Amino acid sequence: MNQGVKIVTIGGGSSYTPELMEGFIKRYDELPIREIWLVDVEEGKEKLEIVGKMAQRMWDASGYDVKVHLTLDRKEALKDADFVTTQFRVGLLNARIKDERIPLSYGMAGQETNGAGGIFKAFRTIPVILEIVEDMKQLCPNAWLVNFTNPSGMVTEAVIRYGKWDRVIGLCNVPIGSILAEPKMIGKESKDVIFKFAGLNHFHWHKVYDNSGNDVTSQIIDKMYTEDAGMPANVFKVDFIREQVDQMNMIPCAYHQYYYKEEESLAHLLEEYNDPNKGSRAQQVKATEDELFELYKDPNLDHKPEQLAKRGGAHYSDAACETIASIYANKNTNMVVSTLNRGAVCDLPWDCVVEVSSIINAQGAQPLAFGPMHPAEKGWLQLMKNMELCVCEAAVTGNYGLAVQAFILNPLIRSGATAQKILNELLIAHKKYLPQFKDTIERLEKEGVTIKDDIARELTEKGL
Amino acid sequence: MNQGVKIVTIGGGSSYTPELMEGFIKRYDELPIREIWLVDVEEGKEKLEIVGKMAQRMWDASGYDVKVHLTLDRKEALKDADFVTTQFRVGLLNARIKDERIPLSYGMAGQETNGAGGIFKAFRTIPVILEIVEDMKQLCPNAWLVNFTNPSGMVTEAVIRYGKWDRVIGLCNVPIGSILAEPKMIGKESKDVIFKFAGLNHFHWHKVYDNSGNDVTSQIIDKMYTEDAGMPANVFKVDFIREQVDQMNMIPCAYHQYYYKEEESLAHLLEEYNDPNKGSRAQQVKATEDELFELYKDPNLDHKPEQLAKRGGAHYSDAACETIASIYANKNTNMVVSTLNRGAVCDLPWDCVVEVSSIINAQGAQPLAFGPMHPAEKGWLQLMKNMELCVCEAAVTGNYGLAVQAFILNPLIRSGATAQKILNELLIAHKKYLPQFKDTIERLEKEGVTIKDDIARELTEKGL
Amino acid sequence: MNQGVKIVTIGGGSSYTPELMEGFIKRYDELPIREIWLVDVEEGKEKLEIVGKMAQRMWDASGYDVKVHLTLDRKEALKDADFVTTQFRVGLLNARIKDERIPLSYGMAGQETNGAGGIFKAFRTIPVILEIVEDMKQLCPNAWLVNFTNPSGMVTEAVIRYGKWDRVIGLCNVPIGSILAEPKMIGKESKDVIFKFAGLNHFHWHKVYDNSGNDVTSQIIDKMYTEDAGMPANVFKVDFIREQVDQMNMIPCAYHQYYYKEEESLAHLLEEYNDPNKGSRAQQVKATEDELFELYKDPNLDHKPEQLAKRGGAHYSDAACETIASIYANKNTNMVVSTLNRGAVCDLPWDCVVEVSSIINAQGAQPLAFGPMHPAEKGWLQLMKNMELCVCEAAVTGNYGLAVQAFILNPLIRSGATAQKILNELLIAHKKYLPQFKDTIERLEKEGVTIKDDIARELTEKGL
Amino acid sequence: MNQGVKIVTIGGGSSYTPELMEGFIKRYDELPIREIWLVDVEEGKEKLEIVGKMAQRMWDASGYDVKVHLTLDRKEALKDADFVTTQFRVGLLNARIKDERIPLSYGMAGQETNGAGGIFKAFRTIPVILEIVEDMKQLCPNAWLVNFTNPSGMVTEAVIRYGKWDRVIGLCNVPIGSILAEPKMIGKESKDVIFKFAGLNHFHWHKVYDNSGNDVTSQIIDKMYTEDAGMPANVFKVDFIREQVDQMNMIPCAYHQYYYKEEESLAHLLEEYNDPNKGSRAQQVKATEDELFELYKDPNLDHKPEQLAKRGGAHYSDAACETIASIYANKNTNMVVSTLNRGAVCDLPWDCVVEVSSIINAQGAQPLAFGPMHPAEKGWLQLMKNMELCVCEAAVTGNYGLAVQAFILNPLIRSGATAQKILNELLIAHKKYLPQFKDTIERLEKEGVTIKDDIARELTEKGL
Repeated sequence: MNQGVKIVTIGGGSSYTPELMEGFIKRYDELPIREIWLVDVEEGKEKLEIVGKMAQRMWDASGYDVKVHLTLDRKEALKDADFVTTQFRVGLLNARIKDERIPLSYGMAGQETNGAGGIFKAFRTIPVILEIVEDMKQLCPNAWLVNFTNPSGMVTEAVIRYGKWDRVIGLCNVPIGSILAEPKMIGKESKDVIFKFAGLNHFHWHKVYDNSGNDVTSQIIDKMYTEDAGMPANVFKVDFIREQVDQMNMIPCAYHQYYYKEEESLAHLLEEYNDPNKGSRAQQVKATEDELFELYKDPNLDHKPEQLAKRGGAHYSDAACETIASIYANKNTNMVVSTLNRGAVCDLPWDCVVEVSSIINAQGAQPLAFGPMHPAEKGWLQLMKNMELCVCEAAVTGNYGLAVQAFILNPLIRSGATAQKILNELLIAHKKYLPQFKDTIERLEKEGVTIKDDIARELTEKGL
Repeated sequence: MNQGVKIVTIGGGSSYTPELMEGFIKRYDELPIREIWLVDVEEGKEKLEIVGKMAQRMWDASGYDVKVHLTLDRKEALKDADFVTTQFRVGLLNARIKDERIPLSYGMAGQETNGAGGIFKAFRTIPVILEIVEDMKQLCPNAWLVNFTNPSGMVTEAVIRYGKWDRVIGLCNVPIGSILAEPKMIGKESKDVIFKFAGLNHFHWHKVYDNSGNDVTSQIIDKMYTEDAGMPANVFKVDFIREQVDQMNMIPCAYHQYYYKEEESLAHLLEEYNDPNKGSRAQQVKATEDELFELYKDPNLDHKPEQLAKRGGAHYSDAACETIASIYANKNTNMVVSTLNRGAVCDLPWDCVVEVSSIINAQGAQPLAFGPMHPAEKGWLQLMKNMELCVCEAAVTGNYGLAVQAFILNPLIRSGATAQKILNELLIAHKKYLPQFKDTIERLEKEGVTIKDDIARELTEKGL
Repeated sequence: MNQGVKIVTIGGGSSYTPELMEGFIKRYDELPIREIWLVDVEEGKEKLEIVGKMAQRMWDASGYDVKVHLTLDRKEALKDADFVTTQFRVGLLNARIKDERIPLSYGMAGQETNGAGGIFKAFRTIPVILEIVEDMKQLCPNAWLVNFTNPSGMVTEAVIRYGKWDRVIGLCNVPIGSILAEPKMIGKESKDVIFKFAGLNHFHWHKVYDNSGNDVTSQIIDKMYTEDAGMPANVFKVDFIREQVDQMNMIPCAYHQYYYKEEESLAHLLEEYNDPNKGSRAQQVKATEDELFELYKDPNLDHKPEQLAKRGGAHYSDAACETIASIYANKNTNMVVSTLNRGAVCDLPWDCVVEVSSIINAQGAQPLAFGPMHPAEKGWLQLMKNMELCVCEAAVTGNYGLAVQAFILNPLIRSGATAQKILNELLIAHKKYLPQFKDTIERLEKEGVTIKDDIARELTEKGL
Repeated sequence: MNQGVKIVTIGGGSSYTPELMEGFIKRYDELPIREIWLVDVEEGKEKLEIVGKMAQRMWDASGYDVKVHLTLDRKEALKDADFVTTQFRVGLLNARIKDERIPLSYGMAGQETNGAGGIFKAFRTIPVILEIVEDMKQLCPNAWLVNFTNPSGMVTEAVIRYGKWDRVIGLCNVPIGSILAEPKMIGKESKDVIFKFAGLNHFHWHKVYDNSGNDVTSQIIDKMYTEDAGMPANVFKVDFIREQVDQMNMIPCAYHQYYYKEEESLAHLLEEYNDPNKGSRAQQVKATEDELFELYKDPNLDHKPEQLAKRGGAHYSDAACETIASIYANKNTNMVVSTLNRGAVCDLPWDCVVEVSSIINAQGAQPLAFGPMHPAEKGWLQLMKNMELCVCEAAVTGNYGLAVQAFILNPLIRSGATAQKILNELLIAHKKYLPQFKDTIERLEKEGVTIKDDIARELTEKGL
């Protein structure tokens, strides 16, 4: 890294890229970037061009001499990289539309990181991330992989467990939302509050202490019932049962609503699904994205537009840039990341990936030991981790029986014939991106499995 | 035990008692009983009289000189007991009707050992079993407690964890069903087949080996799809997804259908609930019981009637008698029982109760170490054990928030407002038997919570 | 096994073989042997001939038609074997003489299963047992390996961990000694007493219960201070500190004296070492063996001679024969064996080998879960298991630094320059049998390391 | 803490106190102290007066308005304290002389934190620290206890396990020595090097990384064989066997020499013991202390004298002051402290005390998860922790059998009759401070146990 840092972003054509650029520009003093490579696939070429030019304009406006390279050749980009960030989406938003609509057409949650949708996103993403890791072993063996492709926890798990690659950190923007919002709720600044997070990606709890070491978690819980506790823009707000939260004396994450308030969360997803003006979340995101790309085309735009915040991933890129700067400059920043457990969450095996408060420095993420949880949280945590392990193994082996097991373990999927139908339709729908399940998919096709949801079926028929 | 064994049966007025007597008579040579005390509560006095006389007739017909004592005074009975069996039902079958109908009135499973019903059966039973244990500490500190009151696993857990009483074994008839049925499916006798069970009560898996040590589990799985694999009479038969069972290469227990085939199991329960000629399972059992008691009244009947098998608990009493004989005669019998884990199921803490193949001798149950499970089973197992621990803790403390946590953790309950309604109605319905939740119930009454299901509401209004 | 069982004994020329034959003859009804193959190496050919003929005479005298084959060709023997027993001694008794004398020449214990001697016995044996396992994978993949080559626990560990061979049971005669002797001490018969052993080979404790389930361990401890508690003939008797044993309320094994009474045990070993009429234990055994082989030469001798008992391994062969019969006839015998932990000793990882009370049947050894130990025993147990793991890893890799670590971890070796001298001399002394340490040994030779003990040096110089 | 911080130092008459004052003066800006209370016992009154006046002179010279109170009334001092530091020595240096000389008189190590001496220091200290904790519960329930009385790890363990007091941090100066010395060895500054420590007090290892995250441990190991690696002044330097250290690729702490080089360490201790001009370490310390107190008497001395460094506890007080400042000012400092494990050292139970790199802030110590160790270190670690647990339990219960167990588990004590003699003599010698062993000591006195070492015996006879 003598002559400045080389950053490679896979999925560089994403609408998030400008936020990433903004984050790097802000940190240039501690993270002197030499060149940025935005990589994408053939289908994403047009977006890559648009966002790539926009990115270069942002750097030019910043006054720093950084060159943004655009390429469809991943290997060319990875050569001698210092940091590789991954924000790609296999199958683009169309795949997410199917992930969401097919389960919803049978009345089940198709959420893109939890539920059936999340499982299939993992099935599509894990084979690709493992290819990227193999490339990295050849082309940039000392680089760090900073992943924010969802489901971020499972992707990180697969990188370590099956890719045998340790230099990886998985990111999520959910904790940052809480960290920014909650201190204000009790009249404090972030710096005067201690956060302790532990759990899994999109499935963690946290405790909060003030700068005298007092537990102020219950004060924040109190406020949560009147104010908004850093809820991500993309998550519908449902109040948890107050007595439950008081019992745990920890703050659940926004995604816990799918588990703690399944009835209401599902009702909301179905309402949107059934509303012809809305459709599933992916359809809404697609509309927002189209707007964003229209904006990005403007040759005068050289800074991140306001509208990006609506996109739902606020702070994601900030997390990525801060992680990279903390590793590069050995900053010892306290962040919440997905990393190898090593005992930090002692209710789970030391060798799995957890999302936990960690110190980020040149050595990567050093998780802070959280200690044991009450059975009420331990039960969920152990269930979810094992579900993730089944998903990862099925993603690697293409074992249909194991995919069934993962589906049935997943608390958002009601087991039975309908669940199996959803599984089968999703396999058919994502055929293009699921080579590991080839034999099963061919069998299902022979059996005449068809997709019930019109939009999902049409996308599939069009090869999208 | 010099002059013969003293057996005390709490809940002695149960329709199961004749089966228990038959089991003891069959084993008199190795288990020389001196006296049997059948204990019941005031509400069960009439049944106790009927069944007690029937029991004495059975002994008289056997030619053995054993006296059957009937009493409502538990302490009198427990004095110097050698073995205490528990088969009582707090609130009798009416309570079970409420356990089942209230959740079903909202479309959720109210199964008496799993689901919301099982949780409330635990809430009612645990305080009583802990009182019995306290009496035993005073009156028969060397006696063994052999429990078959459901939910048998949680009751045994509470006896050890909160009662601090180690001389306990929890029983269930489900494993025996498999052990008797499966060898025949592959053309073998039970004695030529090795069974290895592990898990929790109503939530275990098993593997099968032939007498050359070969794993024949998959052969039995094969047959399961054409024949009946020892399904208990009270469990509706649903086939598991074949690929899932092949992946696990273990045989799930009958109760796994509630978790692996939730949709179909629930549909069946709702169908019965909505059929005015059937009603919930408890209502059917009540009818069977009434028939049985009519038979028992016959002063000429001195042996177990055929109809008892329909009752659903076949082999339960056989398990109890064999356990007692194995302890008394130090027989080293291989049985599947609920006992302290001690590492046998190494995916769970050593100090919780598991249901596992064990050697039964004078020292009680010595569990056989089963080793680790695949994540697909480990996830379920850890979830369920932690759910059980929450139920036990809530049963002892009466903490409403923890009751909510237990409900939400339970995979058969869909979390949200409806789940909370069910919880609240069940608290109201069982007020009489839930002193630990007194404050909460009073609050709910003030808030005007009423029971939606007509039959359950009427029973409650009548104080039944 | 249709036409009778084929047994292969590696190290067949051992003086133990007649005891093994006696055991098989006694059990012929339940274990119908067709043929026995005694295998040995070139150096052992003469003994093989003598003992082989003796073995055939024993079978002929028994009236059973069993052929004893003698061979130096291991592969020929292993073909289609049903059971393979291993009792070989790499380097014969001369190697043991060095194992013992070299440490003793520096005032440290060179005990053949514990101490420096045991470590080197493992270093010599593990590469050979792994070769045998590779042969078995090819020639008799369904056979069971029944090992009684010492250090039996480490050898079994290596077979499972590095050989990836599960069908193995490790044996030791120490537990049988206690099981036979102790009931008599309290006026009972073995069948009326329940033993629960747990720990490691030559490092286990046990508890005893009567046939009413009462803990009678303390009664036996009481007697231990007046009578002999099944001490093996080859172990010098030293009383443990009474208060220590009372505190543990478990009975240590005879080999614990090396750890609990290091001073006295070592003094005794040194006394013998310094006595020109005795020498180290191996020298005494050699004399006994010579006598035995003289007896075996007698063409009229067709039964196990009395003198064999003095040899120290009494009941070893009995254990082996009973294990084999229990597997073959699916007997569910309760025995103490070295087997994969699977949680039975929950203070150690599930995937290491422990020595523990187990049920032996067609499926091999099913360990009985023992539960956690008090820190006083847990500390020793965890130390010793980790020491064993270091020894096994060093035996496989030939890593000198790890050999140093194993030496230093071993409680019978006082760390420092002298320990390193002993290690180095032993490497030189056993060069012939330690190909994995070739580079290190060559380095040590260049550095001029010589063996201080005259007898050990002369044996080495003679290539013995 | 509105009007400034109140610090209480128990054992305030210690020669370390001026260093502590210096540390506080240096940090006054971030730790605004209002008053300091130095507490001591009657026997230490004279020293307390001397050092107390010296302490007040130091503050007066600093220009800060801080009052130093001197008292023999612990309760008066503890009232409303914010931080309590403990540096007391039960029985003063005379007790340490006995701890060292009695074992050495029999040729065994009597080291004051390891070996027999350390065990007895724990036996004397734990009852007193538990009394202090009881006082704190009454008088200053929100205070933090910062302990540096040795054996610091076991004392901290006892405070948490038996005192049920969580607000405690145990300190040691050994890690700081390494942290200061090692970076220089590879031409770096401390701030550019990442240290990761894990283990137990006086029994930890560490790894070192540079500010690019590269493992530079082996570079430092290289230098350790030519330079001094931060060895404490009170520890004799012995080189570890190079291949062993290379194998572990971790840096052992200075105290590991007692375990890894027992022979040489013991030889050195015995050499000093047998040298009439030196005596045991405690005797040397006593001489140094006398010199220090002579200096402290000088009414013109108002700063820490150079000679204090020789005392052996360099950086101890610095560690204490930095810990207190980090808690008070919520500094998130990375320090190595004894704290509740919580999974950080995942080879040990979560609920025991470990010494590990931690982040120190208002919430106390947050240990960084270290992950699993190789069996070679794991074996030692588990042995030592269990030995510590036995010592703590014996210290609380006074169980003689358990004291024997602790002695025998301790790797520096060779088990047997001599070890028991040492144990018995130490009990007699420390009678005054071991009320929990009263009955045993009386029995030993009756049996006529006498102390062999002249100096230790005379001290005892004089009641010192």
